[in-house]
Amino acid sequence: MSRQPIVTHYLSAEDAATIVQRQGIETCLRGIAACIEADFRRWPDFDKSARMANHSVDGVIELMPIADDQTYTFKYVNGHPKNTRQGLPTVMAFGVLADVDTGVPLLVSELTLTTALRTAAMSAVAAKALARPDSRVMALIGNGAQSEFQALAFHHLLGIEEVRLFDVDPAATAKLVANLAHTELKVQVCASTAAAVSGADIVTTVTADKTNAIILSADLLRPGMHLNAVGGDCPGKTELAANVLHGAKVFVEYEPQTRIEGDLQQMPLDFAVTELWQVLLGQAPGRTTDAEMTIFDSVGFALEDFSALRYMRDSALALGMRRTLALIPELDDPKNLFALVRPAAPAPSTAAVASHTTDTTHAA
Amino acid sequence: MSRQPIVTHYLSAEDAATIVQRQGIETCLRGIAACIEADFRRWPDFDKSARMANHSVDGVIELMPIADDQTYTFKYVNGHPKNTRQGLPTVMAFGVLADVDTGVPLLVSELTLTTALRTAAMSAVAAKALARPDSRVMALIGNGAQSEFQALAFHHLLGIEEVRLFDVDPAATAKLVANLAHTELKVQVCASTAAAVSGADIVTTVTADKTNAIILSADLLRPGMHLNAVGGDCPGKTELAANVLHGAKVFVEYEPQTRIEGDLQQMPLDFAVTELWQVLLGQAPGRTTDAEMTIFDSVGFALEDFSALRYMRDSALALGMRRTLALIPELDDPKNLFALVRPAAPAPSTAAVASHTTDTTHAA
Repeated sequence: MSRQPIVTHYLSAEDAATIVQRQGIETCLRGIAACIEADFRRWPDFDKSARMANHSVDGVIELMPIADDQTYTFKYVNGHPKNTRQGLPTVMAFGVLADVDTGVPLLVSELTLTTALRTAAMSAVAAKALARPDSRVMALIGNGAQSEFQALAFHHLLGIEEVRLFDVDPAATAKLVANLAHTELKVQVCASTAAAVSGADIVTTVTADKTNAIILSADLLRPGMHLNAVGGDCPGKTELAANVLHGAKVFVEYEPQTRIEGDLQQMPLDFAVTELWQVLLGQAPGRTTDAEMTIFDSVGFALEDFSALRYMRDSALALGMRRTLALIPELDDPKNLFALVRPAAPAPSTAAVASHTTDTTHAA
Repeated sequence: MSRQPIVTHYLSAEDAATIVQRQGIETCLRGIAACIEADFRRWPDFDKSARMANHSVDGVIELMPIADDQTYTFKYVNGHPKNTRQGLPTVMAFGVLADVDTGVPLLVSELTLTTALRTAAMSAVAAKALARPDSRVMALIGNGAQSEFQALAFHHLLGIEEVRLFDVDPAATAKLVANLAHTELKVQVCASTAAAVSGADIVTTVTADKTNAIILSADLLRPGMHLNAVGGDCPGKTELAANVLHGAKVFVEYEPQTRIEGDLQQMPLDFAVTELWQVLLGQAPGRTTDAEMTIFDSVGFALEDFSALRYMRDSALALGMRRTLALIPELDDPKNLFALVRPAAPAPSTAAVASHTTDTTHAA
């Protein structure tokens, strides 16, 4: 029997940061967006399901699996808004890419940084299909861990030139301003959501509170805007007033999941939405007039992590990063798992005695 | 803001084998069985769900999450019976133990070896509650990767003195015989399932084919036997003839999952079964007479991996094994994820120029 080696590659959080620093964040955002768009265009190829969530008092832990006929991926991700009080990130994630034919895990990767990149890339892919092409100004409500990635994705991929910022935490906004200081983006700090939204073509909401908040209500908005609603992504966690959804065309990633998790959770089950892949394939209309309001009710779908994981894997290989993890045992005979733990056979001369002292030998 | 360090412990396949070799397999099996029994006795404390499965032509990949109010775990596990043809294990697994309050993954561990240990420990816990206390002889049908663990769990935890072996692959049986050579178990190689089952008190089936097989039919069995049916654990993968189930009392781990995956998948939805935890808590009868036939229709439930992961974590710490994995980024400010990838600020004197060359800098 010829033994096939089992190789599980490994990307630590630092490795992922190295990939981004070596390729440049624009290249990464463009590359992940291209993977997402390509994968969304072959939507029917995937075995899809809404993610599995375990909810607790202060947060949620989710598993997000998906597969086509060759590759399986899943992501582990939490959402704990109170974590920042003890210096921990709200969102932490990692994931795995595996071979469908054998089940071998081919890659274990950090996905905290990668989730921020893929969420921003996904938002840009949706906005390219839904926002007015002449959009140049974006309001950014919620200036936490995801905000730089959103700002840069819309700058590089959509041509956004100005971001108007608001957060209830001024320190978060100050951090975002500092991080954007050496980009070409014009940055405007605003005193309220209303002030930030005023004059914007696109409004991105990426707030963290696990509550039915009203970050945006219809009176703040005007015709022709595109809303990139990222923060409402969990049962009991919404950002938009119901009247905002009623006055707009709503687009989603995967309807069964968004009905449960998105701002859509507030709406009756017959409230019409369009899955984005249909727009990308030309099977459903996106924006049809400059006066329409469009909403991308983003919750984050497993397919985006599938796309991001294959991008990161390919990038790591291209950069010669080949760290591995020995999670799966290598066996000379795959039916002989016990060989891993079999006590050494006693020497022949003492075999008779040893057979009566097996337990003691084991417990040594 | 005080930063809490993020520590994710890591157990490789070799580390898990080291734990078993240093503690002895009997100690490990007893320890995991004790954890399983304790956790099953507090069944209502857990947030439970049937596992998520992605099926392909030749196999399945599953995710198995579960949580109480403090600890979350999940397991990734595949089942690819044809893998052995290319020298790969049929079943490979790994898993994670995480903190419910923050979502921090506290342990990433191999679970291939550990799954074999916990499946055998689970079988022994069930048999202790269901088999005749005077059981001394066990038939073992299917002599693959799981078989040594089943034999030793029943030997050490139930007092089984003789195992009667059959497998369609004689090499698998020869391997099992060799692995059991230095134990106190009496080992009998049999020419057929019927011969192996004859005279047995307990019959363990642990075959791998993903098909509706009939390993056991009613004519082979006699009153008072306990069947430990381990291999029928996936839609389209069963081991028992329907008439075997009709003639016995059937016990399961988690009914919603076993209805889909177990030998129970053949039976009508109103076919009565008892969840094992109720027997362990004295809330439902187990075996009531020596003449009854009992079946543990085992499919493998997430709670067993929860128990096994906490056993392996505690064992690793007790043995001073403290390897870690840097899957989650350490951030000075948890809202400043971008700090991981922010390009170095240009020197003050060249700032004006640099602000126009950001893209180039990024792509360096």
